[in-house]
Amino acid sequence: MRNLDEKTITQAVLARNAETADRRLHQIMTGLVQHLHSFAREVQLTEQEWEKGIEFLTAVGQICSPVRQEFILLSDTLGLSTLVTAQNHRKPDGCTEATVFGPFHVANSPQYELGSDLSNGLPGTRWFVQGKVRNMKGEVIPHAQIEVWQADDDGFYDVQKPNLDAYQGRGVITSDNEGRFHFRTIVPEPYPIPHDGPVGKMLEALNRHPWRPAHLHFMITAEGYERLVTHVFREGGEYLDSDAVFGVRSSLIAEWVEHPAGATPDGENSADPFFTLDFDFVLNAIER
Amino acid sequence: MRNLDEKTITQAVLARNAETADRRLHQIMTGLVQHLHSFAREVQLTEQEWEKGIEFLTAVGQICSPVRQEFILLSDTLGLSTLVTAQNHRKPDGCTEATVFGPFHVANSPQYELGSDLSNGLPGTRWFVQGKVRNMKGEVIPHAQIEVWQADDDGFYDVQKPNLDAYQGRGVITSDNEGRFHFRTIVPEPYPIPHDGPVGKMLEALNRHPWRPAHLHFMITAEGYERLVTHVFREGGEYLDSDAVFGVRSSLIAEWVEHPAGATPDGENSADPFFTLDFDFVLNAIER
Ligand SMILES: [Fe+2]
Ligand SMILES: [Fe+2]
Repeated sequence: MRNLDEKTITQAVLARNAETADRRLHQIMTGLVQHLHSFAREVQLTEQEWEKGIEFLTAVGQICSPVRQEFILLSDTLGLSTLVTAQNHRKPDGCTEATVFGPFHVANSPQYELGSDLSNGLPGTRWFVQGKVRNMKGEVIPHAQIEVWQADDDGFYDVQKPNLDAYQGRGVITSDNEGRFHFRTIVPEPYPIPHDGPVGKMLEALNRHPWRPAHLHFMITAEGYERLVTHVFREGGEYLDSDAVFGVRSSLIAEWVEHPAGATPDGENSADPFFTLDFDFVLNAIER
Repeated sequence: MRNLDEKTITQAVLARNAETADRRLHQIMTGLVQHLHSFAREVQLTEQEWEKGIEFLTAVGQICSPVRQEFILLSDTLGLSTLVTAQNHRKPDGCTEATVFGPFHVANSPQYELGSDLSNGLPGTRWFVQGKVRNMKGEVIPHAQIEVWQADDDGFYDVQKPNLDAYQGRGVITSDNEGRFHFRTIVPEPYPIPHDGPVGKMLEALNRHPWRPAHLHFMITAEGYERLVTHVFREGGEYLDSDAVFGVRSSLIAEWVEHPAGATPDGENSADPFFTLDFDFVLNAIER
């Protein structure tokens, strides 16, 4: 443990970490230390560069707050979130694919009745969303809990707004006896991930844009099924081929159908054009 | 850029990052993304584990303050600091070895005259430190700037104390025309690195202690020479073989000589036993 040099330090740290009784922690720390050290050796990281790295990580941590998670943004923009999502959801063909969770989910999102307006008063173009939740055998899944969250007309989530009074553009509904759900909201726009912090500076230095294509977030849970965290993207929308967080999957792109002013699916009359989306979700049964 | 899976995501991120004009940044980010992804794949990191990882990193960032740098502690305890120090200071034999910088250095440390009491009033056992700064040819280096910092009798640095009025146990002196320096202070004790935060929790989970052997920090700069950041450790002290931050080097261990009560090197009479240290530093000339 004395005179550790650039070659012997890694084994010394691994040996010290081997004292834990937590075998999984030991495995994770071993992989982490090996790759962290290999990285530093491979690029011959200088002291000034590592000082900058520490400043960067500190800034990422310091900007985090109950409504901002910069480390998730960092993980998303480095493709780590997509990797972790993918390797944890190797599902049979035919199941709805998962994608990144993102930083804008909140716990205790409001509960709504089927057919409710989840925008909760947001201005924008009306959007009627419906679909069905079923399994690989084609059986419908009643009473699935469907949580939805989305950006608004300006590309912002409710939690990004100062002095938030009430959640807007998020909520939880439950599929009916036939696995069906429907709700209304407004059409979300593409948005840049928050880029006024250290992750934004990183993207700028990398000459990368911070934009995400328009999408609606879903998290669907039902007894006996793997939890599904995913998006539905807008066909033909911008940034589908350059999502800042690498989340786009072809199977999750759907037509957001535009309708002229007139009768809406909920039986009202709209003076403006409106949109509809019909999207079914297929959950993966948990093996027993 | 669509349908990226656990195999294709890495190349996609590298391709996106290749747009920067900063070649060194590109090189560093390439190594980082490759090793970060390899780590996640190798240990088959789960979503729950990565969520915990993000919580940990966030906590590390949040506890940082102008007087606490938890990311340096993390780097130190993972051996990354020792690795980066080593690979940036491959010096000829005979030069004084470098070791970790640590988190307790401050900018604008007070300037002192030779012979001053750098403890600035700290209680403890008196310690008289002296030595010479020279180069590999044996030539003395006059006017070298010698910055010193240390823990106190209880193992705390001044900046760790609440309501700090004046720096204690740190300062800058300058070698004389013959490259000599001397100052007095108190004997620093071994100390645990701050372990009431996330890094402390990590060490606990790893069944590792947070202690460092007793040491005195030095940073020595002189025109024409590589900056030297190092410690002098106490021979025979505890934790020399299990330094929490992997910083001990045999060549930096010296006898801290105990003397009975009586005449001190500065010509006073001490009613209590006191210590002396004699340590010379050899700087590495910068190639021209
Ligand atoms: Fe989103
Ligand atoms: Fe120290």
